[in-house]
Amino acid sequence: MKPASALSRVAVVLSRTSHPGNIGAAARAMRTMGVTELVLVAPRHFPHDEATALAAGAADVLAGARVVPTLADALAGRALAVGFSARGRDLAHPPREWRELAPEAAAATADGPVALVFGNETSGLSNAELLACQRHACIPADPAYPSLNLAAAVQVACYELALAAAAWRAPQRPPRARATGADLEALHARLRAMLVASGFLDPREPGRAEERLRRLAARLDLEKEEVAILHGMLDALARKGAGSAPGR
Amino acid sequence: MKPASALSRVAVVLSRTSHPGNIGAAARAMRTMGVTELVLVAPRHFPHDEATALAAGAADVLAGARVVPTLADALAGRALAVGFSARGRDLAHPPREWRELAPEAAAATADGPVALVFGNETSGLSNAELLACQRHACIPADPAYPSLNLAAAVQVACYELALAAAAWRAPQRPPRARATGADLEALHARLRAMLVASGFLDPREPGRAEERLRRLAARLDLEKEEVAILHGMLDALARKGAGSAPGR
Repeated sequence: MKPASALSRVAVVLSRTSHPGNIGAAARAMRTMGVTELVLVAPRHFPHDEATALAAGAADVLAGARVVPTLADALAGRALAVGFSARGRDLAHPPREWRELAPEAAAATADGPVALVFGNETSGLSNAELLACQRHACIPADPAYPSLNLAAAVQVACYELALAAAAWRAPQRPPRARATGADLEALHARLRAMLVASGFLDPREPGRAEERLRRLAARLDLEKEEVAILHGMLDALARKGAGSAPGR
Repeated sequence: MKPASALSRVAVVLSRTSHPGNIGAAARAMRTMGVTELVLVAPRHFPHDEATALAAGAADVLAGARVVPTLADALAGRALAVGFSARGRDLAHPPREWRELAPEAAAATADGPVALVFGNETSGLSNAELLACQRHACIPADPAYPSLNLAAAVQVACYELALAAAAWRAPQRPPRARATGADLEALHARLRAMLVASGFLDPREPGRAEERLRRLAARLDLEKEEVAILHGMLDALARKGAGSAPGR
C-alpha cells in the first residue's frame, strides 16, 4: 500500500469535545499530515464559527466531518482503534509510547480502517472509552505538566503516523555543486602562499596554524561557487596588500 | 548531562509573532515537554490576555519570557540556533528533517545554550533570519497543505527534542502477572475435555479447530487472573450444560 493511501484509511475520532476551537485546530493538525477523516462523538458544539476559523486551510476536513452519538458508532468497521491517554490505568491496556506503536497502526491500515481516538479536553478518555479501543498510546511528556492541548496531541499523533508510514519527506534541496579535492588543494596552496608572503606563516615551520585552517575548511563542505568567492576575496586582498588595512 | 538538564539549556525563540494566542499556546506546548525558556523577538502584542489564557498551566513560562528587539539579541550566547521552516531556499542552509537533526541539537546543549527559532505565522522565517541560525530544520508535512499552526510546530519540535534527549518515558505500567506455560496447558486440557464432551471436537480427529484455539490463546498473553476467570466461566458452562442454552 502506498504511504499516502495508508493515511487515507486513518480517522481521527474526537470524543465529547467541549471547545469547538479545538475541533478546528485538530482538523488543521490532521490536514498538515495528510489525515483527512474526522469523526466527532457527541461534540458539545458543532458546527461552530470557532471551529471554522481555527481549521484555516483544512475546511475540507471539517466539511467532511461525521458526527455520531457514541464511540461504538465511530469504531464500527475499524480494524484497529488506538486510544490516546497520558494516564496509565490499572485495568486498561498497558500504555505504549506512540512512537513505538505507530508503525503497527500504519501497517494495520492494510487490514482495514484505523482510528486514533482522543477524549474530552478536561477528563480525557474514560476507562470505558479506552477499553473500546484495542491499544492505549501515550505521548511522553514532562510529568510536571503533561497536559498537551487536544489539537497539539492530534498534531503529534498524526506526525508520528505520517513518519511511520513514510508518507512525507523533507523538501528536496537542489543538488550542491561541491568543490572537488583539486579545488580545495588549489585554494589551500593560494592561501598558504599569501600567508607566507604576509609573514603570518613561516614556511619552514608552518606549525599548527595550517592544520587548523585545513580542519576548519573541511568542516565547511565548500561549494564550487564558494571557492570562487574565496579566490575573489584573496585576489582583492593581494592587490590591496593585507598590511595596508587601516589600524594595522 | 542529565536529559532534563539538556532541555533546561534550550530556548524557543518566536520572531515577530502576530497573534498573542499563539505565544500562549506555544508556551503550553513547550512546558509539556519540559522546555521553559521563551524569547520573543518584537512580538506585535505581549503581554496579552489571549496569551495568558492559552498558556493554561504554563503561566511560569510566559512570566519568564524575555522580549528583545532583534533576533541577534535572542541568539547572542547560543552555541547553536536551529531555524524551522517548511520552505527550502536556494541560498540558505540545506533543510534537514528535524527528527534526524534533533539528536545533534540535544548534544549541542553540552557546549552551550541552544535555540529553536520560529518565524512569523504568515511569512515564516525570512532568509536573513534563517541565515542567522546555523541549521535549517523542517517538519515533514503533506505538500498539499504543509502549514502547521505555530504552536503545533513548537509542540512537534519540543517533542522530538525531548525524545532525542530521552528526557521523558511512557508512564510505567504495573508489572503483569502473566500466566505460565503450566497454567495455559491446564486451561487447554480443560477446554478440550469440555469440547469433546459436548461433541464439538472429535477426539480421534481434532483437526484444525484445536490448532486455531491455541493460536488465538497465544495472542492473548493471558494473565493469571484472566485464566482464573476463564476457568470460572468453564465451570459455570459445565454445570449448566452448554446444550441447555435457550434458542439452541
